[in-house]
Amino acid sequence: MKKIILIPDSFKGTMSSHEICETLKSTILTHCPKAEVISIPVADGGEGSVDCFLSAVGGEKISVKVKGPLFDDMRSFYGFIDGGKTAVIEMASCAGLPLVEGRKDPLSTTTYGVGLLIAHAKANGAQRIIVGLGGSCTNDGACGAAAACGVKFLDKGDRAFVPTGGTLKNIAHIDISEAQKNISDIEMIAMCDIDNPMYGPTGAAYIFGPQKGATRDMVVELDDGLKHLSDVIRSDLGLDLSLTPGAGAAGAMGAGMMAFFGAKLQMGIETVLDTTKFDRLARDADMIITGEGKIDGQSLRGKVVIGVARRAKRLDVPVIAIVGGADYDVAPAYDEGVTAIFTINRLPQELSVLRAHSRENLAFVADNIMRTIKAFGVLG
Amino acid sequence: MKKIILIPDSFKGTMSSHEICETLKSTILTHCPKAEVISIPVADGGEGSVDCFLSAVGGEKISVKVKGPLFDDMRSFYGFIDGGKTAVIEMASCAGLPLVEGRKDPLSTTTYGVGLLIAHAKANGAQRIIVGLGGSCTNDGACGAAAACGVKFLDKGDRAFVPTGGTLKNIAHIDISEAQKNISDIEMIAMCDIDNPMYGPTGAAYIFGPQKGATRDMVVELDDGLKHLSDVIRSDLGLDLSLTPGAGAAGAMGAGMMAFFGAKLQMGIETVLDTTKFDRLARDADMIITGEGKIDGQSLRGKVVIGVARRAKRLDVPVIAIVGGADYDVAPAYDEGVTAIFTINRLPQELSVLRAHSRENLAFVADNIMRTIKAFGVLG
Repeated sequence: MKKIILIPDSFKGTMSSHEICETLKSTILTHCPKAEVISIPVADGGEGSVDCFLSAVGGEKISVKVKGPLFDDMRSFYGFIDGGKTAVIEMASCAGLPLVEGRKDPLSTTTYGVGLLIAHAKANGAQRIIVGLGGSCTNDGACGAAAACGVKFLDKGDRAFVPTGGTLKNIAHIDISEAQKNISDIEMIAMCDIDNPMYGPTGAAYIFGPQKGATRDMVVELDDGLKHLSDVIRSDLGLDLSLTPGAGAAGAMGAGMMAFFGAKLQMGIETVLDTTKFDRLARDADMIITGEGKIDGQSLRGKVVIGVARRAKRLDVPVIAIVGGADYDVAPAYDEGVTAIFTINRLPQELSVLRAHSRENLAFVADNIMRTIKAFGVLG
Repeated sequence: MKKIILIPDSFKGTMSSHEICETLKSTILTHCPKAEVISIPVADGGEGSVDCFLSAVGGEKISVKVKGPLFDDMRSFYGFIDGGKTAVIEMASCAGLPLVEGRKDPLSTTTYGVGLLIAHAKANGAQRIIVGLGGSCTNDGACGAAAACGVKFLDKGDRAFVPTGGTLKNIAHIDISEAQKNISDIEMIAMCDIDNPMYGPTGAAYIFGPQKGATRDMVVELDDGLKHLSDVIRSDLGLDLSLTPGAGAAGAMGAGMMAFFGAKLQMGIETVLDTTKFDRLARDADMIITGEGKIDGQSLRGKVVIGVARRAKRLDVPVIAIVGGADYDVAPAYDEGVTAIFTINRLPQELSVLRAHSRENLAFVADNIMRTIKAFGVLG
């Protein structure tokens, strides 16, 4: 084997995609010391996403003074890749849940800092900005981010303000004319793997509000606010997001990214595959190894293994999936281009026991796959 | 692939070696419909061993009227393989634990029926007799079996009797002159994978007595009886078995097989490999698949995977081991000839949960191994 591409998702709660790449790479190199091993740790939009992109394609990490989730001063960052043409932002870097540990308050938190990162990237030449949605402590429908980029939110008295989850209901009008000048020539992509609508029983507030600190009453208030925001977006911007899947992602950041920034919501894995120019990288690869915490045959949408397999199938490159678990109906995965699936559960034990050995068990499986290929195939 | 040999041990408590062969075979044939797939379900000496041999090499099952473990009349069986030259007996067929369910009594149970099977096989032309030790309800040191074949056990009053676990202590002398005429020209092999000595704290009575129904007092009585038997064997037959590993197998059946029948104790897997002429079968195989419940790097003795691998290594045929669990130190297995090890634990769950899916999970792993070989190797 001359060229191997590693492109795993994280195993949530056990190993980051970066760790998985490292483990696989060192195992593979013991068998094919001369192989070119390309690691593409898959960003999921949440914490660590910028590092994933930088590690996959190289680039520069930019440090920026912004506002934190409670309008406090803080330093955040984003990544410049693609020679500075593309910026990668993870909203968690300045609106993430860990930043308000002990002070969670989805009525008051803001994505204002995210907007400052976007503005900074734009000012520094970005033509394409990827914003990872995930791990947020906010429920402001991206109003904070939009305000930071010049969108005007006006109350009944025509006074501009920066809405947060608790003050969305005070928005009487939205004026994006100024902001559009700033960002209209930029391609904006919001990475998002979830389907939730903006509001309602499966919306941002009801499903994700509680983990951000919302009480039962606060959830109702947040949900009312998002519904109101949706109404104003429709009346002022002519955009109906009331039923759009993914609009509810990250405290309705998905909705705001579409409405205020003209962003396209895109599956994380598709964004990664496009951004890393995967098809070009993989065209002459001998093997692709991907993986995720659990694979099943039903929920294929947005899954890393399937996303990778679909591309690889067109390129006719074999795809080995190494997973934490394989459900009992994975047959569709083979049709999508997965060559074979192996699980890392070395002993019949629960995850709570196995978790401590994840890296070792991953290496074990990879080692045995390589041994098999060596014995029966052409390892080169 | 033109020729594949399946030679798995059972996964104790979940799948018989026969079931494993069936599952592997049907999975392999979906990928290589024209391949010659040879199944050698490995006999472990216990219940099902005769069927394993018959299924592996073909032969005839002989039904015989014998005595059961409590001297009751019953029908038992053995197998003729190798054109009738070799007989295969499993002692469990007429001295097995399930036969005394609800009436366990290691003081009274006998291997007399086993002796009748041996005598029948000999009378019908067997030149080699394999006796599987395992799953017994007896603790008679093979005295019952020996008595059935003409060995005379005499008490202080020179009266012949058939000793059982509880009456071993009454043996004053042993006379094997008559019996030796009967069996001296036969090669006797006792299949046995355990190391326990005849008596003492790690002997037959202490370790295996309780599961045969022995109370604490009975264990002491049984152990004393075996020690006494050992003494008489030494004084009358000139054979010191006091420290011989494996002599304690199956209620000291190991000791008696050696002392009264001149049997050689042999690992089960070695017996299977020899009897099936494995080296000749495997010489031109493309792949061997073996397996066992759990593989580790320490206790290699008597293990099926290692036994198979050692032979396969000399023949230079790849060996895939599919196992229920792989401990954290299996590296020595590769040195012994194992090509690769895969575990069947599809999800991170305990055996109690996974057990219900064993066959499906085994098929899943085998399927994915075949898919991998197909993608990277020469499947033919």
